[in-house]
Amino acid sequence: MKLTVIKIGGNVIDNPDACAAFLKAFAQLQGPKILVHGGGKIATQTAAKLGIETQMIDGRRLTDRPMLDVVTMVYGGLVNKNLVAQLQANDCNAIGLTGADGGIIRSVKRPVKTIDYGFVGDIEEVNSGQIDALLLSSLVPVIAPLTYSREGLLLNTNADTMASATAVAMAERYETNLVYCFEKKGVLSDPDDDEAVIPTLNPASYAAYKESGVIYKGMIPKLDNAFAALQSGVKRVIICHADDLIMASEGKAGTVLDLT
Amino acid sequence: MKLTVIKIGGNVIDNPDACAAFLKAFAQLQGPKILVHGGGKIATQTAAKLGIETQMIDGRRLTDRPMLDVVTMVYGGLVNKNLVAQLQANDCNAIGLTGADGGIIRSVKRPVKTIDYGFVGDIEEVNSGQIDALLLSSLVPVIAPLTYSREGLLLNTNADTMASATAVAMAERYETNLVYCFEKKGVLSDPDDDEAVIPTLNPASYAAYKESGVIYKGMIPKLDNAFAALQSGVKRVIICHADDLIMASEGKAGTVLDLT
Repeated sequence: MKLTVIKIGGNVIDNPDACAAFLKAFAQLQGPKILVHGGGKIATQTAAKLGIETQMIDGRRLTDRPMLDVVTMVYGGLVNKNLVAQLQANDCNAIGLTGADGGIIRSVKRPVKTIDYGFVGDIEEVNSGQIDALLLSSLVPVIAPLTYSREGLLLNTNADTMASATAVAMAERYETNLVYCFEKKGVLSDPDDDEAVIPTLNPASYAAYKESGVIYKGMIPKLDNAFAALQSGVKRVIICHADDLIMASEGKAGTVLDLT
Repeated sequence: MKLTVIKIGGNVIDNPDACAAFLKAFAQLQGPKILVHGGGKIATQTAAKLGIETQMIDGRRLTDRPMLDVVTMVYGGLVNKNLVAQLQANDCNAIGLTGADGGIIRSVKRPVKTIDYGFVGDIEEVNSGQIDALLLSSLVPVIAPLTYSREGLLLNTNADTMASATAVAMAERYETNLVYCFEKKGVLSDPDDDEAVIPTLNPASYAAYKESGVIYKGMIPKLDNAFAALQSGVKRVIICHADDLIMASEGKAGTVLDLT
């Protein structure tokens, strides 16, 4: 049985028209599927309106108690529930979840080393049996980037990591594809040419592209994580534009990563 | 099979210690159970911080678009997810839901007559089969006071009404008790004596208490709704203090309403 785990970034969520088009395509996607969403700019905007300052280190949000409440409101409430309601209107039986709901994704509060990230979670366990029970009820999980600890804390958690951890855990039960939707058409061989999509990557070609400097900087951690997911049992990772979801899920758009 | 549907009001949610004690008791309650929660003062406080004015008519919140976003954030996110995380820490496998999640409670936007309540929902259908599928997976639904329309709108919805509609729908499948937890020990025969709890009410004694003026004003719509739920198949309605949940669920505290 095939399963598709799709991660959608904040840039799509921030654009109502792009988001509506994406959700329509997502609703049409056949077979069991899971959506993991990021947060977008609404958390930062809402925090600002509430007089709470956003502090980022290396692209990661420092999450003190007031900021935790903001991301719980925005990711777990505003964003998640609007995605679910729109999917319902597209005849997709979505169910919005954080890691706490059904205990599907448990984490530990990140230990303080040089930086105290605050209420940020490092994933410890994905309850694939519970997620599978929802899929077997024909539900479509829509997962917000929040997890929980044994102590009952909610914890802000990276959406990319939640998507790959979920895909890895589900790969024990399903032939699992992991699709990252973002603002580019795939991994590009020329950062200035949006059409220069590398159609496929395997460990050997990835190493060669890194060696030659074609793939560099920001894409490297993302792709390293993608190959780690493949090493852990995920069948295929696809990196594509949110507009190309259906085509990409059929292997006809975006960059397809596998171990072949 | 027995099912308990419990409604908890905003006054308990607003008090962290009372809420923690309530959740501990709720987690210990045996058998399938559903929690429906109100909003508390946090929505009004959050709206005020965001510069959004709260307007109430007859105790009901007018819900324009900015206020809808606030209640979606607060009820669906902050309140619901914190309840879920705390229940998980109490070994209760809670799953937080709005009416949109799994399509469990669908409504229509209230038609404008003399007053435009805005994005407020009147319940049209409870999907008891979907709720039952969650219960059969040993999940404990925790329901926020939001529903959705066929068009994909989220709608602010009265928590008391959601609790009774859920109990009525589930009564086709379970022997269902509906427990309203609030700040008094039950229906009082003397409003100035918090210990003067009327232990039982049936339609005849309720009529007599109303006739004599012992039960009046604010309690009447609440009790009328409770008797309507009994007429629609709910086995028992219990009105009790949140501190007395376990005792009340065993019929040893609060006011027990039935049709005997």
